[in-house]
Parts: sequence; C-alpha cells; structure tokens
Amino acid sequence: MNNRFSFIGGKQGQWRVLEVREIIGSALQATERLHILNQKIDLPPQDSAWNLQCFTSNIRYSTRLEQDQLKTVQPPLDRQEAVRAVLIPIKKRNSWWELAQDQRRAIFEEQSHHTAVGIEYLPRVARRLFHCRDLGEPFDFLTWFEFAPEHALAFDQMLTRMRSSQEWEYVERELEVHVERDLDWVECGIIPVE
Amino acid sequence: MNNRFSFIGGKQGQWRVLEVREIIGSALQATERLHILNQKIDLPPQDSAWNLQCFTSNIRYSTRLEQDQLKTVQPPLDRQEAVRAVLIPIKKRNSWWELAQDQRRAIFEEQSHHTAVGIEYLPRVARRLFHCRDLGEPFDFLTWFEFAPEHALAFDQMLTRMRSSQEWEYVERELEVHVERDLDWVECGIIPVE
Repeated sequence: MNNRFSFIGGKQGQWRVLEVREIIGSALQATERLHILNQKIDLPPQDSAWNLQCFTSNIRYSTRLEQDQLKTVQPPLDRQEAVRAVLIPIKKRNSWWELAQDQRRAIFEEQSHHTAVGIEYLPRVARRLFHCRDLGEPFDFLTWFEFAPEHALAFDQMLTRMRSSQEWEYVERELEVHVERDLDWVECGIIPVE
Repeated sequence: MNNRFSFIGGKQGQWRVLEVREIIGSALQATERLHILNQKIDLPPQDSAWNLQCFTSNIRYSTRLEQDQLKTVQPPLDRQEAVRAVLIPIKKRNSWWELAQDQRRAIFEEQSHHTAVGIEYLPRVARRLFHCRDLGEPFDFLTWFEFAPEHALAFDQMLTRMRSSQEWEYVERELEVHVERDLDWVECGIIPVE
C-alpha cells in the first residue's frame, strides 16, 4: 500500500472549499477546491495555490488498550452521510520535538487526554492523521475529519476542548479548511492544465 | 537544517567499501564507494548500484532520563580517529509496526535493553539513526556507526548482544556495509557521469 498522500488546494478535486479559518499564525489561501490524492505529487497543476505532501505511518503515542478501544468505535472514511470535512494542518514548536518520548506521551495523554477526548466523538467524527514534518513540509501534521452536517456542532466542541489542553500550548500554527463533498466528482487523478 | 540524507553505493564518495556482509535476507551489491549526502537525491549517478533515501527525526522511544544519560557520553560523528564505519540497513516485520507504542517501547528497552546496551559502547562507537520506512524505501532504518580500528572488536560484540535480543526477532532484513574513510576525499556533491 502506498502511504504517500497529497492535499492540493486549487481548482480541481472532490471537495468544494467552504471556508478557510485562521486559528494560530497565517492561514492558507482559500481556493475553489481541495484535491486529495493517494500519491506523491511533485508538480501540481499550475493553477494550484498550495500542495501539501504527507504520509500515513505507525502509531506514535497510543497504547494497546487505547488502540483496542478506538478500534471498536472508529468509523471508516468516505461514509455516504459524511459530506462535510475539515482539514486542519498543524505545526508544533521546536520545544515539543526536543522533548523525549515519555515527556511527549505524558503531555499528549496523561495531561491533555488527546485520545480520551477524541474517542467521545466517535463514531460521529471519522478522522485520519497524516505526517509531514519529516518531509520538510511547512506543517508537522495534516489532520482530517469527516462527519455528517448534524455533527458539525459536536466537532466544534471537540476542537474547543483540544485547544484548551496543555498539548496545544505547543502548537505554533493551525488553520481550518472547511470543505463539502462533491458527490458528482469522478476521481481521475491530476488533470494537466493546458 | 535539512533532515534529508542519501546513502549511495557506487564509484564516488568519501567512504571506501571494504566488505558487504549478508546478515538476514538479501544483502546489497558491493560497490567501490559509499557516498553520504545531506540532501535528497532523486537521480544518482548512472554508475551507482543503489540509492537509499532517509531522514533524521525526533526521538521515538527513549525517555528524558535515557536521553540525558546518552548526552553525557555520546561522541560526535567525524572524529579524526574514527576511520572505520559500518552502515547497517534494517527492515522490521509488519508485526512490529502493528504493535502499539507501549508494546514497542517495552520490547525495545524493558526487554531488549537497546539503549542500555548501546550506552556501554559509548564513547567508543559514535552512531546516528536515519529513518526510511515512511518514504516507502526497502529498509525501515539506516543505522550508522563510526569508530577507531581498535574498537572494531567491541563494535562486533555490541552487534552480537543486540542480535540476541527479543527486539531482533522482529528484524526481517539486515546487512552490514563495512567502510573506511578516505582522508583525501574532497566533498563536492554528486559528480555527474559523462
């Protein structure tokens, strides 16, 4: 399985951009569409505003017990009713990355309850984590959330709780790209611009 | 700082290849030289036999206490007396990567004493860890060790101890590329082949 993904903001893609919200630091340019591809893209279409490269990877913090709890409730992506989604790119401070593994784990879960809070919103909000820091990208992570419109309020509440945690003191850039699924979109890869 | 590195086996580079040893699974082709560059290389010289892409990253397992202990004894790379080096590419089984963080940590340190054993050979053996699994490379890690010739025996002893650990039951491919520093080599990047 190819673990590389590209999130391209431009005129193509299955997701219509509704709004880009600045949270911490500078946002990304609002575009018409968001295109997500399960491949590495070096040269996006010329009319793209941004091209974020990332990969899925092994679990970095959660324990076997937490993983087993998650597995019983976490929904898949691409559910028919989940027509709303939010891309949240995040960059953490250098001081976070200089912490040892036990220190990051303690802040992540024992103090901030990252997994425990997230699990309360399952199966309403489907999520997936993509890593980008190791690729020298402008963000450390791309977090991706899909939900039905009636769960938008619950999703906002989850964000508020996460952002009040100790872990979030280490976030130095964060923004939200709100999108809506275009049910008529047919994925056919990158369409070259003439 | 650029965290990307390339290990290229071919006719160029600061390290003369002395021997390639097959340990588990297939080895790499023995070449004249090993070239290590602190950059991503998509197109290596045509006369190269292999091109391993990797990156340095944050600490994945060790605790603050272990990190602080390491810092007091770990030597830098490129010491004048460390004219011998060994590149050990390693690939672990999928069953390793499917473990949760607490399970991998327990095998890595509490059961296999990876850091504790390694520290016994400091400052004789300088080491650096490079990650490659997330790039879709054939290996998960490139481990790199530099030492003076009189410490070659201690280095071999360390490998024997590591390989008898529970952690090593998860290794499915491993080999050794023994090299010697060419003190006359002048680094000038990749030299294109005419």
